[in-house]
Amino acid sequence: MTKNILSSLPAWRQLADHAKTLALPENHLKFLLKESGRLKKFSKKGAGLWLDFSRQRLDDKALHLLLELAEDRNIMGRFEQMMGGDHVNVTEDRAALHTACRSFSNKPVLNDGKDVMPEIRRIRNDIKSFSDDLIAGKITGPSGMPFRDVVVIGIGGSYLGAEFATTALQHQADKGIRMHFLSNVDIDNFGAIASKIVPETTLWIVISKTYTTAETTANTLQAVKYITSHGLDPKNHMVTVTSKGSPGDDPSNPVLKTFHMFDYIGGRYSVTSAVGGVPLSLYLGYDRFEAFLKGAEEMDIHAATTPAQENLPLLAALISVWNINFLEYPAQGLIPYSSPLSKLAAHVQQLSMESNGKSVTLDGEPVRVSCGSIIFGEPGTNAQHSFFQLAHQGRPFPIDFIGVLNPCYDQYNGLSQGVTNHQELWANLMAQAQALAVGKEEDPSPAKRFSGNRPSSTLVMDDLSPKNIGRLLAFYEARTVFEAFIWGINPFDQYGVELGKVMAGDIRKTMAEKNKNPDYRFDNRDEIQKFYLEMLFG
Amino acid sequence: MTKNILSSLPAWRQLADHAKTLALPENHLKFLLKESGRLKKFSKKGAGLWLDFSRQRLDDKALHLLLELAEDRNIMGRFEQMMGGDHVNVTEDRAALHTACRSFSNKPVLNDGKDVMPEIRRIRNDIKSFSDDLIAGKITGPSGMPFRDVVVIGIGGSYLGAEFATTALQHQADKGIRMHFLSNVDIDNFGAIASKIVPETTLWIVISKTYTTAETTANTLQAVKYITSHGLDPKNHMVTVTSKGSPGDDPSNPVLKTFHMFDYIGGRYSVTSAVGGVPLSLYLGYDRFEAFLKGAEEMDIHAATTPAQENLPLLAALISVWNINFLEYPAQGLIPYSSPLSKLAAHVQQLSMESNGKSVTLDGEPVRVSCGSIIFGEPGTNAQHSFFQLAHQGRPFPIDFIGVLNPCYDQYNGLSQGVTNHQELWANLMAQAQALAVGKEEDPSPAKRFSGNRPSSTLVMDDLSPKNIGRLLAFYEARTVFEAFIWGINPFDQYGVELGKVMAGDIRKTMAEKNKNPDYRFDNRDEIQKFYLEMLFG
Repeated sequence: MTKNILSSLPAWRQLADHAKTLALPENHLKFLLKESGRLKKFSKKGAGLWLDFSRQRLDDKALHLLLELAEDRNIMGRFEQMMGGDHVNVTEDRAALHTACRSFSNKPVLNDGKDVMPEIRRIRNDIKSFSDDLIAGKITGPSGMPFRDVVVIGIGGSYLGAEFATTALQHQADKGIRMHFLSNVDIDNFGAIASKIVPETTLWIVISKTYTTAETTANTLQAVKYITSHGLDPKNHMVTVTSKGSPGDDPSNPVLKTFHMFDYIGGRYSVTSAVGGVPLSLYLGYDRFEAFLKGAEEMDIHAATTPAQENLPLLAALISVWNINFLEYPAQGLIPYSSPLSKLAAHVQQLSMESNGKSVTLDGEPVRVSCGSIIFGEPGTNAQHSFFQLAHQGRPFPIDFIGVLNPCYDQYNGLSQGVTNHQELWANLMAQAQALAVGKEEDPSPAKRFSGNRPSSTLVMDDLSPKNIGRLLAFYEARTVFEAFIWGINPFDQYGVELGKVMAGDIRKTMAEKNKNPDYRFDNRDEIQKFYLEMLFG
Repeated sequence: MTKNILSSLPAWRQLADHAKTLALPENHLKFLLKESGRLKKFSKKGAGLWLDFSRQRLDDKALHLLLELAEDRNIMGRFEQMMGGDHVNVTEDRAALHTACRSFSNKPVLNDGKDVMPEIRRIRNDIKSFSDDLIAGKITGPSGMPFRDVVVIGIGGSYLGAEFATTALQHQADKGIRMHFLSNVDIDNFGAIASKIVPETTLWIVISKTYTTAETTANTLQAVKYITSHGLDPKNHMVTVTSKGSPGDDPSNPVLKTFHMFDYIGGRYSVTSAVGGVPLSLYLGYDRFEAFLKGAEEMDIHAATTPAQENLPLLAALISVWNINFLEYPAQGLIPYSSPLSKLAAHVQQLSMESNGKSVTLDGEPVRVSCGSIIFGEPGTNAQHSFFQLAHQGRPFPIDFIGVLNPCYDQYNGLSQGVTNHQELWANLMAQAQALAVGKEEDPSPAKRFSGNRPSSTLVMDDLSPKNIGRLLAFYEARTVFEAFIWGINPFDQYGVELGKVMAGDIRKTMAEKNKNPDYRFDNRDEIQKFYLEMLFG
């Protein structure tokens, strides 16, 4: 299928033509929005979320052509293949079965002919019993005092998703656990955490698929030194989440408990595996983690089975393609009007940019169209008082707004200017989408004119329940892979991070030489490296 | 001066031509970097920082033309005018005198003929005595117990800079104060903080120039309700940072202390005024705040007096212009290899995008060239495991790397693979800049090829001392205004945020009506607004 060059598909060529029509002044969003019934037509509900894309620079024809493109690229078929265990990660010749992590159906999911569900269920049970016992005080360190601090050692896909979900659900963190994320190899990340924890009642969770990630290895070593320097034994204070048989799953190096992860689940898609499951179950209790999984499962089923024109993540993916390839926006803002979603942008930034910031198609040919987009964001209303000046009057970029109908802390309901804080928040969410779209072209002062025509979507959820956070997570996962399926790229590999690793390894060796031999000179390095090395070694 | 249309200046036209030359394959960065002496030529030291721009896609001619452009636009002259109190904020007819906040010279700084330095010195003294007394336990609430939690209520420019500086300097926070930022009107921001503080020992700092910002007003009201609901009196638990005579500086509404701010200091440039001064002095002690000011002053003097070709923020501004206008990059990454600088990108995002995301020149003419850039970032090495896949193999964007030679927590110096964590961090910093620049075009697998030619600068500082954080802050402030002076725009107003505020105010009124009268219907709203309002009111 990817043999068909994307940009020569009839739908693609018609979309390119049609984008020119939509760029005409008479198709400014302020006019498109006058169409009666537009909201009804350009908004869809599914899996507990509601997506309003009425303020995208779209019309019926554009949407129709985008759906034709989705059909031509068989993206729902590819989603089904993904969920069914096909080796959709072609470069690494692997399945991508993150959806199996949250399957509660009785159907087998075959990976190379073997049903993965039994091991997935076993790990869920492991997580449940471990977290139940730890929370109940049955699992403790040798002091007998319950664990109070949990430090998660992991980076990238072993970190961002869990951080997003713990931040989003902190209002339900009633298990007496303080969560810390030790991701960066920067010793100041370690030092800041070490200054806050009590060694006797701290549990360290080391998350690394291969157990060879340089950052995680270095931080684990610091943790072991820290634990032993306090007269404690790492085997009583550490758990690992890693592949079967990795150095983190080695009986000669015992830990409190090891949870397995599998090569068919990529890092940035792994929040619903043990990677997110162990920290989230300790922080929130297993039941809430299971509700989170069930929300994600519901979205997976929606994405897999809902006709394209009603399919939320699929429509969102088509809108991305429209904005990136035809309207040529290089970036996308992600603005949740909800403080607890403050880490969503960082998670989706990884999910999307690492998945789809690619240069070759599945066939190894150069991608001939733009793919991937810069994703960034902060919560509203904060963002309004930060970079929205540029969003309104500078370089335009499309925005995903997110609204949450019911806040976590509705007991604080005092009125300011006649409205609650939550209503004020919503007034702003509504106003921003509108102001960006319609603008205000007439004002005596040129500095006070707004060109408008700046597109956005709004995704609405009922509240920040674990189930809704699971739905939201799976929505962005599905959107990401649908985009990739349109572009014909592999959203599951990340070879682009390798070159820097190799070069860092080479520099590390030189540094290690110097540590061993203070007389070592950096004469075999190029001019720039030599300068930096001498500066660092003083 | 701005009457000269920027894009018709000879230097501009020559730069546009020269960019085509630099785009030729033989001018790929991997070849430019082979030039001996390049680092020496394309790196500069000043005000305690070192800027390496050897990996920008620049050559002598480009730099020469950029410096000619700086000369043509008289940007150093404009910087001097700014520091001297000229009304460089033309649309609001005001001076922009943030540099006066950190002046320790005896020279007067005239604003409309009046020396502002006496009032600036008075406020510094106010901050010093208040923070000294509070830290010493001489100022307490009625319980007599020292204040332990400080909640800063403020948004945008009354928030991001202080958050950046407190995060960067948290390793020196030895005054027993926990700092909380209540910025978002989202009640979940309030609720999360309320769940962590002890009312009797909490001090609330309300920061608002006009004291009419909707978010801050609403949050202050919640704070007052919270304080009184615990049987306490707000006048014993609140301080204000606001303009003389504002509703926050009203003797009939007494508070513990009021600190003044002035209309000649814009929000996003106000960290070195009482806006940052009060929180930072409580968190770190006044002396460290003063060291922070002195670092900023040093950078101001460097920016104002150093010849253009040696002037760090000026060179950085020229590089921005080169990258944005001639190489046409729409975004810039800001990647500090230092965890405590995790909030730098959010601060500079506001500083830069709110200042320079403009559509009109000082003369009110449309800006004919791109101005402003999307700024985003996360600390390295985290960013490597997140969005650097796209940085290496997807859509290219220039990056500012930041390196810190000495970490805060150097007592944790265990070796992993022969190097300390800090050395590992530096190996990665060095490797990323190099990998992005040179790439790797030969590999049997197309997915493992890197096109390279991706530019970056690296800014190096000795350590995270208050002085260096002040220098860094002022570096980005000066870079921002130098950019604006090139583009001929006003970096001190923000009319782009007004339209959304007006529309939100209109929606708020409707909501307030509905709160008063449950039978109120939203029939006078458009279709979309009506739908959202009905959804919210259930």
